Amino acid sequence: MAGSSFGTLFRFTTWGESHGPAIGVVVDGVPPRLPLAEPDIQHWLDRRRPGQSRYTTQRQEPDLVKILSGVFDGQTTGTPIQLLIENTDQRSKDYRNIADRFRPGHADYTYWKKYGIRDYRGGGRASARETASRVAAGAVARKVLGSGVAIRGALVQIGPHAIDRSRWDWRQTENNPFWCPDTAMAARWAEYLDGVRKAGSSAGAIIEVVASGLPVGLGEPVYDKLDGDLARALMTINAVKGVEIGAGFAAVALSGEENGDEMRMQDGEVVFLSNNAGGILGGISSGQDIVARFAVKPTSSILKPMRTVDTEGNDVEIETHGRHDPCVGIRAVPVGEAMVACVLADHLLRHRALTGGG
Amino acid sequence: MAGSSFGTLFRFTTWGESHGPAIGVVVDGVPPRLPLAEPDIQHWLDRRRPGQSRYTTQRQEPDLVKILSGVFDGQTTGTPIQLLIENTDQRSKDYRNIADRFRPGHADYTYWKKYGIRDYRGGGRASARETASRVAAGAVARKVLGSGVAIRGALVQIGPHAIDRSRWDWRQTENNPFWCPDTAMAARWAEYLDGVRKAGSSAGAIIEVVASGLPVGLGEPVYDKLDGDLARALMTINAVKGVEIGAGFAAVALSGEENGDEMRMQDGEVVFLSNNAGGILGGISSGQDIVARFAVKPTSSILKPMRTVDTEGNDVEIETHGRHDPCVGIRAVPVGEAMVACVLADHLLRHRALTGGG
Amino acid sequence: MAGSSFGTLFRFTTWGESHGPAIGVVVDGVPPRLPLAEPDIQHWLDRRRPGQSRYTTQRQEPDLVKILSGVFDGQTTGTPIQLLIENTDQRSKDYRNIADRFRPGHADYTYWKKYGIRDYRGGGRASARETASRVAAGAVARKVLGSGVAIRGALVQIGPHAIDRSRWDWRQTENNPFWCPDTAMAARWAEYLDGVRKAGSSAGAIIEVVASGLPVGLGEPVYDKLDGDLARALMTINAVKGVEIGAGFAAVALSGEENGDEMRMQDGEVVFLSNNAGGILGGISSGQDIVARFAVKPTSSILKPMRTVDTEGNDVEIETHGRHDPCVGIRAVPVGEAMVACVLADHLLRHRALTGGG
Amino acid sequence: MAGSSFGTLFRFTTWGESHGPAIGVVVDGVPPRLPLAEPDIQHWLDRRRPGQSRYTTQRQEPDLVKILSGVFDGQTTGTPIQLLIENTDQRSKDYRNIADRFRPGHADYTYWKKYGIRDYRGGGRASARETASRVAAGAVARKVLGSGVAIRGALVQIGPHAIDRSRWDWRQTENNPFWCPDTAMAARWAEYLDGVRKAGSSAGAIIEVVASGLPVGLGEPVYDKLDGDLARALMTINAVKGVEIGAGFAAVALSGEENGDEMRMQDGEVVFLSNNAGGILGGISSGQDIVARFAVKPTSSILKPMRTVDTEGNDVEIETHGRHDPCVGIRAVPVGEAMVACVLADHLLRHRALTGGG
Repeated sequence: MAGSSFGTLFRFTTWGESHGPAIGVVVDGVPPRLPLAEPDIQHWLDRRRPGQSRYTTQRQEPDLVKILSGVFDGQTTGTPIQLLIENTDQRSKDYRNIADRFRPGHADYTYWKKYGIRDYRGGGRASARETASRVAAGAVARKVLGSGVAIRGALVQIGPHAIDRSRWDWRQTENNPFWCPDTAMAARWAEYLDGVRKAGSSAGAIIEVVASGLPVGLGEPVYDKLDGDLARALMTINAVKGVEIGAGFAAVALSGEENGDEMRMQDGEVVFLSNNAGGILGGISSGQDIVARFAVKPTSSILKPMRTVDTEGNDVEIETHGRHDPCVGIRAVPVGEAMVACVLADHLLRHRALTGGG
Repeated sequence: MAGSSFGTLFRFTTWGESHGPAIGVVVDGVPPRLPLAEPDIQHWLDRRRPGQSRYTTQRQEPDLVKILSGVFDGQTTGTPIQLLIENTDQRSKDYRNIADRFRPGHADYTYWKKYGIRDYRGGGRASARETASRVAAGAVARKVLGSGVAIRGALVQIGPHAIDRSRWDWRQTENNPFWCPDTAMAARWAEYLDGVRKAGSSAGAIIEVVASGLPVGLGEPVYDKLDGDLARALMTINAVKGVEIGAGFAAVALSGEENGDEMRMQDGEVVFLSNNAGGILGGISSGQDIVARFAVKPTSSILKPMRTVDTEGNDVEIETHGRHDPCVGIRAVPVGEAMVACVLADHLLRHRALTGGG
Repeated sequence: MAGSSFGTLFRFTTWGESHGPAIGVVVDGVPPRLPLAEPDIQHWLDRRRPGQSRYTTQRQEPDLVKILSGVFDGQTTGTPIQLLIENTDQRSKDYRNIADRFRPGHADYTYWKKYGIRDYRGGGRASARETASRVAAGAVARKVLGSGVAIRGALVQIGPHAIDRSRWDWRQTENNPFWCPDTAMAARWAEYLDGVRKAGSSAGAIIEVVASGLPVGLGEPVYDKLDGDLARALMTINAVKGVEIGAGFAAVALSGEENGDEMRMQDGEVVFLSNNAGGILGGISSGQDIVARFAVKPTSSILKPMRTVDTEGNDVEIETHGRHDPCVGIRAVPVGEAMVACVLADHLLRHRALTGGG
Repeated sequence: MAGSSFGTLFRFTTWGESHGPAIGVVVDGVPPRLPLAEPDIQHWLDRRRPGQSRYTTQRQEPDLVKILSGVFDGQTTGTPIQLLIENTDQRSKDYRNIADRFRPGHADYTYWKKYGIRDYRGGGRASARETASRVAAGAVARKVLGSGVAIRGALVQIGPHAIDRSRWDWRQTENNPFWCPDTAMAARWAEYLDGVRKAGSSAGAIIEVVASGLPVGLGEPVYDKLDGDLARALMTINAVKGVEIGAGFAAVALSGEENGDEMRMQDGEVVFLSNNAGGILGGISSGQDIVARFAVKPTSSILKPMRTVDTEGNDVEIETHGRHDPCVGIRAVPVGEAMVACVLADHLLRHRALTGGG
């Protein structure tokens, strides 16, 4: 349990480095007799794949997934599912110049101090490449949740530029390279990021993930609250520095009466008149949409020189020449969706265990 | 594993309801031969105790802790430590009127739907009273960390009023009822909260916790990253809606070169020239101060009537007459400190297991 | 996770030392709305209680259990259940003479070397007194399993004297002080143990636990097999040195055709024509009776002098004058039943999580 | 956590079916900077490999292991190690005749009832082929334990024929196809098993594993006792029906004074005058040799017809024509060693976490 696993019942373990022969994930705890084939997973991997626009890294990885176990005759068997993705475009030479110096904002220094050894090629285990495994696991999680549950992500801010939420249109997220639900802002971001890219700099982003169609009752108080597990899930994505649920940090400035989501009966059903809670009360899903948001810092790898030190204890400068994303937040959208899916699938099984429901 | 436990090696399990005979926590995984006595724990419980100012609930609970196991001749023995706190001022009658209707913003509705039964007295298991057990566990965690590690919390915003960070003085946090490091703002909050309280309303808050004196290397990538575990730890505290590390959400608007913490050698030691990372790189402590912040929503129990439904499916109104905190964020400060201490103690042991260090 | 917890979903954590103020157990993961009151638990504790015949220790402990949490209006609420048992007849002075020397066969030496400190009074945490907490947890587990599942234990051998299985009568287990299903052998054991007791010696025992009424499907291959978890559960009981399932060690001398349990349809149901498997195939319950057996070594505390060493590294002799059981295996019967119940309850919930069944 | 993982800190997860494209294991929690290369693992896999004598299955599998992650420049990096073994000699057609009928003694019936689907080819996930992954994990565990720890296994009984322990010679275990330490008995087994094989029958076996060179202190009472974890580890190996430690079941017939291992000082060191405890007291290693024994039932796949039922509920007969081992216990020797190694490596890390020692 050195940290490569996630989940209690729906539990996955990822492995692999950016420049090793392959990466992958073994997903255990998947209920039997769910239809599953490689295209079901590939669909989601393709959304995370690099090199799809000029706003993401130009590394070319087909990210073709292979199912090595746990599926028979097109159905899950209840046994562990190994999903393997070969690394094909590694260009290890790009990274020789950073073998002995620590890139600011990266895990280089802490890995070196913790382990006394590190695979410096492309960030090794700390590379965002690991998130492909998360997306693969998330595709399986969606199967567990079933077609009644929708998990969608959108970029709501890049750098200082936030969307206008009144223009939110989920369909637009598929029509621009930013998963942006506000077409006007997407255009502005394109211009803004062109500038950032040309300057050799980078920008941060905020992603919002919304899960719809869930039953009331998911979440185990008090330490395995649904929001607690979502916070951990999202915070462990590379470069994430903040997570909030529902009104989040903005709730602080509301009064109790503004913030509390009132309830009324409608057609025999309980309805909430607002959703500041983000669909979670006391750590348990309320039946409203689950709304989570996370902040991604600007990419640490930039073309500008930064002051740092090397493994010998010398003051040096460093600039990154390898391929990189000017805004890693863009590719974090499918990763965030995947992590939310995994948390929900896990809690669906846990809820069923405890109560028979779900 | 229905959610009442926290931690991997330093692991605690809390139990108890607001209006049962007692609450408590069993802490397992504590190294042997650490000096521990009841006053060591009482010290921290006294900081969380209600009724210490007019800004917190008037419930009078001495919160006296008893050590029932795991300590012999004044030292830990390596066996589980049971800490028990009796409930003495319960006034269960206060809560009869809410037995069959759901308070907005509370866990009433979700518990009822999930479990089909709930101890409505004072919120039962969902009560913030559970956090006393966290503080008790945190006191033990501080012993594990040793005297070289300091974990301090401060309130940095109440409602819309944020402190001026240039006036930060840690000593002042002990001199006002808000754990506020900015004396001028403390005075302003007093006035503001008096108004909130008289209006029968409530306010949210942001708490910052800083941990100093830690070695490099705590945190297990990639799913048990230190920041991931801190996010979960803090998000599970009652009423918390957001967590951020270092620059947090503000990092989004920075450029890569502004956000990256540059490094230099000073007197043979690596020093960072800024701390936007909040002391964590790649999920591993960097040796800088760990900085975590969390947002507490305004207290849901307010004196103003709110629209809700009851267990029979009727539209009703509710107002809370029980004792409550106008700003629960205040008493969340020692709770936040405790959770940070527990996460760090756990990771210290995990780091020692893997590398022999720490 | 220093070892005081057991189970994945139905999970309990015990705490307490033989001569502290109390011992107890917190049981988490109990489904809501199960009827539960103190007498339901006391019933099973009374069976394990010392001092009920001249063949068990004369320590007088009423072992009265108190439910401190997790139950409301006579039903479980889905929150953790704390069960507390006060220690009342401690006589710590009995143990002063063994404070600095290691009793052979006991945990004295290993605790001292591992922890550098030990509560020597009555064995501290290593005392069989801890098993009262197991029995309490087992009583809750039986509620989870429901009245259709019966878990019964019997003593099948004391010292060299094994029962005649052809005389097996479950009703007789309640009619002698040995839980012996063979009345003739019970009489012989009485005589034998009187001799052992008078000689200041002790005897070992074999206990068989049978669980009936379980569905097919409990057990998670390949590392959480039902038999694997039963083996761990029983081996962790004090003084246990062996565990076997079904035909157990005797299966080694059978041929494949003798050992394999053949199947036939009867009245539309699958029936097995024998049960060498002990109700478990591939780690999963087959619907037959689960049959587990475990060996308890002779009590290590005897009145005869034994050679040992002390904490200062001197050769010394030791004899035990405290109260003790000439055959601890007798009181291990209800403990074994309890552990089997806990394993089965856990796997029932896990099976329901994965498949919806159970 | 559907059962495919083992261990707390040194934790491995296996995946793969007998007739899928590959099997494998991801080992997490391995300390950094241990030298590790494929031959280190291949050495142990070769000992388990089928087809090495006429007493084991004639399936030809080279079982070549590939390290896909977690090793850099010949050393472990502290990140998860994926070990992959391709399946090459699958002959799936052999198993078509058993697709719809349940082999007695196998997991066929329980898998089918639990999951509603099963990969019948060669036993799928329930195949003993899975144990190759255990052996690979065990090879890594040996690296964690270091060269001062020796873990050796021997066959001590086949069918009714037990070795003469006075003739025990460890060197002989490498000189016969049975890992038999008693040369005379090895010859007798050869003759006996030839008869069994020609009769189309099968035989059981008892394996003894001895671990030497361990420090005092491994094991976490009371539920993660070293013997409890060993019992689970060994019981989860295919076809195992019993586990015992030290004197095991034979201890029952000893008196307390015969069974207790007395202690004396010798050259300033504590020595035990016997080892009935099997090196474990109170669940903690005592520094003596750890001695564990496990019983393997006779192979369930035999050439003789057995009565069974099919998936349609018909009474049918079945005989196995696929390749099989007349005594699966033989190949269980390296598997048992591997499982013991994994338990010990895990507890070594856990002990270091708690006490800094180990």
